[in-house]
Amino acid sequence: MRGAKEMIVPEQESATIRPIVAIASPLEMELVARIVAAARGRADIRSRPDLLPSPRYVADHGDPAWRRSPSQQAEWRAMLRDADILWDLPHGEPAGLLEIAPNVRWIQTTSAGVGPTVQRLGLADSEVIVTTASGIHAQPLAEFVFAALLYWTKQLPGMLADQRAHRWERFCATELRGKTMAIVGPGRIGREVARIARAFGMRVWATARRHDPERAAELGLDRLFGRDELPAMLAEADCLVLATPQTPETTDLIGAGELAALKPGAVLINIARGSVLDEDALIAALRSGQVGFAALDVARVEPLPADSPLWDMPNVLISPHSASTADSENGKLVERFIANLEHFLAGRFDELAPQLDKRRGY
Amino acid sequence: MRGAKEMIVPEQESATIRPIVAIASPLEMELVARIVAAARGRADIRSRPDLLPSPRYVADHGDPAWRRSPSQQAEWRAMLRDADILWDLPHGEPAGLLEIAPNVRWIQTTSAGVGPTVQRLGLADSEVIVTTASGIHAQPLAEFVFAALLYWTKQLPGMLADQRAHRWERFCATELRGKTMAIVGPGRIGREVARIARAFGMRVWATARRHDPERAAELGLDRLFGRDELPAMLAEADCLVLATPQTPETTDLIGAGELAALKPGAVLINIARGSVLDEDALIAALRSGQVGFAALDVARVEPLPADSPLWDMPNVLISPHSASTADSENGKLVERFIANLEHFLAGRFDELAPQLDKRRGY
Repeated sequence: MRGAKEMIVPEQESATIRPIVAIASPLEMELVARIVAAARGRADIRSRPDLLPSPRYVADHGDPAWRRSPSQQAEWRAMLRDADILWDLPHGEPAGLLEIAPNVRWIQTTSAGVGPTVQRLGLADSEVIVTTASGIHAQPLAEFVFAALLYWTKQLPGMLADQRAHRWERFCATELRGKTMAIVGPGRIGREVARIARAFGMRVWATARRHDPERAAELGLDRLFGRDELPAMLAEADCLVLATPQTPETTDLIGAGELAALKPGAVLINIARGSVLDEDALIAALRSGQVGFAALDVARVEPLPADSPLWDMPNVLISPHSASTADSENGKLVERFIANLEHFLAGRFDELAPQLDKRRGY
Repeated sequence: MRGAKEMIVPEQESATIRPIVAIASPLEMELVARIVAAARGRADIRSRPDLLPSPRYVADHGDPAWRRSPSQQAEWRAMLRDADILWDLPHGEPAGLLEIAPNVRWIQTTSAGVGPTVQRLGLADSEVIVTTASGIHAQPLAEFVFAALLYWTKQLPGMLADQRAHRWERFCATELRGKTMAIVGPGRIGREVARIARAFGMRVWATARRHDPERAAELGLDRLFGRDELPAMLAEADCLVLATPQTPETTDLIGAGELAALKPGAVLINIARGSVLDEDALIAALRSGQVGFAALDVARVEPLPADSPLWDMPNVLISPHSASTADSENGKLVERFIANLEHFLAGRFDELAPQLDKRRGY
């Protein structure tokens, strides 16, 4: 036992065959309790909310600016030192995570895009299994894409301005039906966006390494383009959705040239990472109207600096990296963790899923 | 020939077997030309844009406040007097349409909800075939429903307020997935809304006369309720969509009692007619929070009076009866008209579709 502040006390102390799970980012008490119940004494769940930032909203995984006091930090490091399993990547730790937490064999993250953090923590070449939140965020992110796309397509900005002026003026909007959506990154999130786009009657294209018609059908897409065919795809896109992982290959993937290749007035939605997109080039394209509207859930620097011109542009929607967050998120992640824990306890390490390819970064 | 202002001049005058089509609401020149081309001399298309209001936007079917001068009115009445077929119900005519246009046998309307107008014009008991725009507006209306529902569910009002303040504050929204949508009026529009709702992972219910599980499956719904079971359906609804036709039965269908029966904080979306909903009861329910958000494409009195409290309510979206309007609309309607014209010319009157049941009003 680690003192009075420890929230979950294992009923029996037992030998080292009982792996220790350290809860390393904020998690609701009832969900910690669900993990404890599922473990049925076969794992020791260590939860110390007092050593973690307070959640600012449901499913917050921690304010990165929060810092522990020196005495908290000592207790925190002791907890990591014993841990075999981590619920989430610990915030603010230096490069050598395995020096701090030498026993760790499995980390369940609460994000999908953890490649760069895993590399920074020095885990890329380790034996540590990293299972991610990949797929968990697909539905809320897809819903955000259509919230943003319909907001613009159905002319809500003008409708709201008329409403403020008590002005009833009939108008004609366009439709999603028949329009073309281009997706960069047809992973689990991109495919969920594609599925709903097709329900709206859109034509959906994407780029992929393997890009034959059979693969397109497998992914539920109307057509796949090779990565070198990006400009051809962009030229016909009414809407470009960036849903690619953050890797060296995708950094600065969309710059001035790609934006100029787009169909004039196209909508751009970035639910990937700020690094995928050249923000200055986007600002210029939004000013000229080459990009008609941009919805950005991510920014080059987060929080988006208060003096960024993007804040005041009438054809921009800024979302504070919250599009993936939903009140159902931690419950779904805990279900996934519990299923993975069963595999772990049974020694079926290959079955832990979905596993990060730590070298590729996604 | 009716003088120099006539836009489309039939190449040959011929006998009365060539029916006369009067274009009775604004229609783009190229679409009139498409009808002329399809008629191939078998019908005489009379188009006099100078006797019609100027369209205020694409697919505008005419400002109801517009009036003809006395000389225009004389020319207009002469045109109606000769017409066998009308493109659209003529605005502003008195009850006895058949006294003004005694030869009319078929009217193609540009709206779906024409029951009350047809009754007002004295056509309810006539032999005149009325084909409507039913179905044409299903897609744009369904898109509006999801624009409004996602605007609220994904917390765009708060996101836009934060953006105006240059404030990057992460938050947690909810999801459509797993929520329940209740539809009153599962006609063509309601079923299109239902189809997309299910693609989002919503549970979709509706009320209908025949309400067995087989019928629910036919309509693509999770469950049907009898009309007397409305309160039970409302009690579990996260979102209520009104898509019912305007008939005596549906007038005041949703009043204070029905709003009180809703799940607290539910979203209400009215794409039917203002008369379906008690607006004063809605305002009270919005103020108390019993209704969390309302998106209204229609109003009890249109235009919505400038002093209506609805304009300034933060949990209301006012759409000026434009949700059904899309830039593709007239093209689709002309395709329908041309197909119907073929049936008409061949004497296959039963095949004209979709026909209004003039007594039931939908």
